[in-house]
Amino acid sequence: MNDDKILLAHGSGGKLSHDLVDRFFVRHFDNPSLLQLDDSAVLDLTGSQSATLPRKLAFSTDSYVVSPLFFPGGDIGKLAVCGTVNDLSMSGAHPLWLSAGFILEEGLSLAELERIVVSMAVTAKKAGVQIVTGDTKVVDRGSADRIFINTAGVGLVPDDIEIAGDRARPDDVVLLSGTIGDHGMTIMTQREGLQFSSPLQSDCAPLNGLVASLLATLPPGTLHCLRDPTRGGLATTLVELAERSAAGIEVEESAVPVREAVRGACELLGLDPLHVANEGKLVAIVAAEEAARALETMRAHEYGREAAIIGQVTAAHPGRLVLRTALGARRIVDMLVGEQLPRIC
Amino acid sequence: MNDDKILLAHGSGGKLSHDLVDRFFVRHFDNPSLLQLDDSAVLDLTGSQSATLPRKLAFSTDSYVVSPLFFPGGDIGKLAVCGTVNDLSMSGAHPLWLSAGFILEEGLSLAELERIVVSMAVTAKKAGVQIVTGDTKVVDRGSADRIFINTAGVGLVPDDIEIAGDRARPDDVVLLSGTIGDHGMTIMTQREGLQFSSPLQSDCAPLNGLVASLLATLPPGTLHCLRDPTRGGLATTLVELAERSAAGIEVEESAVPVREAVRGACELLGLDPLHVANEGKLVAIVAAEEAARALETMRAHEYGREAAIIGQVTAAHPGRLVLRTALGARRIVDMLVGEQLPRIC
Repeated sequence: MNDDKILLAHGSGGKLSHDLVDRFFVRHFDNPSLLQLDDSAVLDLTGSQSATLPRKLAFSTDSYVVSPLFFPGGDIGKLAVCGTVNDLSMSGAHPLWLSAGFILEEGLSLAELERIVVSMAVTAKKAGVQIVTGDTKVVDRGSADRIFINTAGVGLVPDDIEIAGDRARPDDVVLLSGTIGDHGMTIMTQREGLQFSSPLQSDCAPLNGLVASLLATLPPGTLHCLRDPTRGGLATTLVELAERSAAGIEVEESAVPVREAVRGACELLGLDPLHVANEGKLVAIVAAEEAARALETMRAHEYGREAAIIGQVTAAHPGRLVLRTALGARRIVDMLVGEQLPRIC
Repeated sequence: MNDDKILLAHGSGGKLSHDLVDRFFVRHFDNPSLLQLDDSAVLDLTGSQSATLPRKLAFSTDSYVVSPLFFPGGDIGKLAVCGTVNDLSMSGAHPLWLSAGFILEEGLSLAELERIVVSMAVTAKKAGVQIVTGDTKVVDRGSADRIFINTAGVGLVPDDIEIAGDRARPDDVVLLSGTIGDHGMTIMTQREGLQFSSPLQSDCAPLNGLVASLLATLPPGTLHCLRDPTRGGLATTLVELAERSAAGIEVEESAVPVREAVRGACELLGLDPLHVANEGKLVAIVAAEEAARALETMRAHEYGREAAIIGQVTAAHPGRLVLRTALGARRIVDMLVGEQLPRIC
């Protein structure tokens, strides 16, 4: 009954490797570039986006080691596609092509592998990207935890885009596309076996459509920074942006949307939602005069319905994130120190 | 004394993650794209290669799980850079940019990590590529075997390149850039603790320079296929090319260069060098009239000194690899079946 498990020979590069590629990857990721099955995918830049050839590429990578592999709202495959699509999107790129590198543990069930591969295919289709090249390695039992996935991605950056972590300026407005902590608290409660009356669900989602809407709506040059607050949470992302831009960031605590169930789980476990990972949210820092338009654009998008203006950039306390609490107190918030939860993504 | 080990918090996305990035990756991979430290690297296609903008990209990925991490002739870091550089090169691309995704096991020694990162930096420099974006995950002790590395790579494909696995034609000549089996037998003898009088050494090397020499020397359209015979060895690669091109390939066994030490180790362990992995060799299939020139070009390059013409493409037995032995017998050779040695790369 070895037919339904990953064997070491699936990673040999020989016959079984080829069978695996045909049975899962070629079948589900079906696209002309992948079907060439050469050592690398050759991708055509003409006509891929506009009449003129692109001048700038975005290139990004992430490995995914999340545990459990399947969770409410997603799985490691959906996460692996969304994460890299989102990283590309945060530079203002149109994500087009992904690679997928699998590290499989001997004994992994082929049914689980297929479920993950199908999830990647569905998510890639939803995001409008193609998985064009890949690799599979198998390690002996005990040398990995079932499956790790790396995705890298390539996107095209329109000529007029100038978005970067060092472009926040005093008086800019900080927007958040929705509630925080959903992904991290979903994983944590799954791992701890906690039950809540209103079930938690990961926010895992591809954000390239939301970014495209913002770029289509806002005048060139007014969208200064984009980041997806994943590991380390919203606070770590905002501290990074403050440091990179040598500006202060002030956030109104009461303006940051947090679901009741997430807030409850955080209180129970002694965590600050500001430090909990998200996988389907973005922070946008925009010129003040475009803040209302940016908010309206976000709210009109399926992944931005609960968007909010949460604060602004200041000339005071450069490099620092300051939180104004509901009671009017101000406290400096640092990046996440220590490890809150391993293998969140 | 935790200062010298990887902790779970190094993968948190917070403070220790930032320290790790600064201490190892920014320092050793130093380049302007990486220094932006945004979610993706933004890469300039203008002036990266020629006066005109490129029309075609090559994109490839591989994960590396080799055991042991360090071996004569290389280590997992050198392998991770060479492997992806070589995959890109086999499509005729000029490799330019790499991503690096690290999966680290809690407890990995920082000294080993640094040794690996330095090896990647040195190899990237030698190959003329930049490591422009990356990611680090940490998993709990026992959930991975010390370190796994994924690299993905992007290269630019000159307009006049038409190299693919399905372009071998009857009468084409098959060239091999040097001896086979060196990498695989080095890893295997290290793992088995075998000693030989003449020590084995991995052939791990970046082949982009050798490919550039071939492209500069051979008339456009005469270099039909390029492959690096890694996992599965020379035989698996040639069977793939025969199948993809629907042509037969005949190889003269005595023409295939194999070092004495590799031959001896293979005999001892009951292996066929034709199925043993290489990490610094390529197979080129060229139009017959250019074979002599291709051989001369290879031999003039540091990674092609022992290049040889090993066979030809035939109209007979399409999809099959036939070996002519020294005694004049002919036998069909298949791709590797089963697993010869896990974690060879």
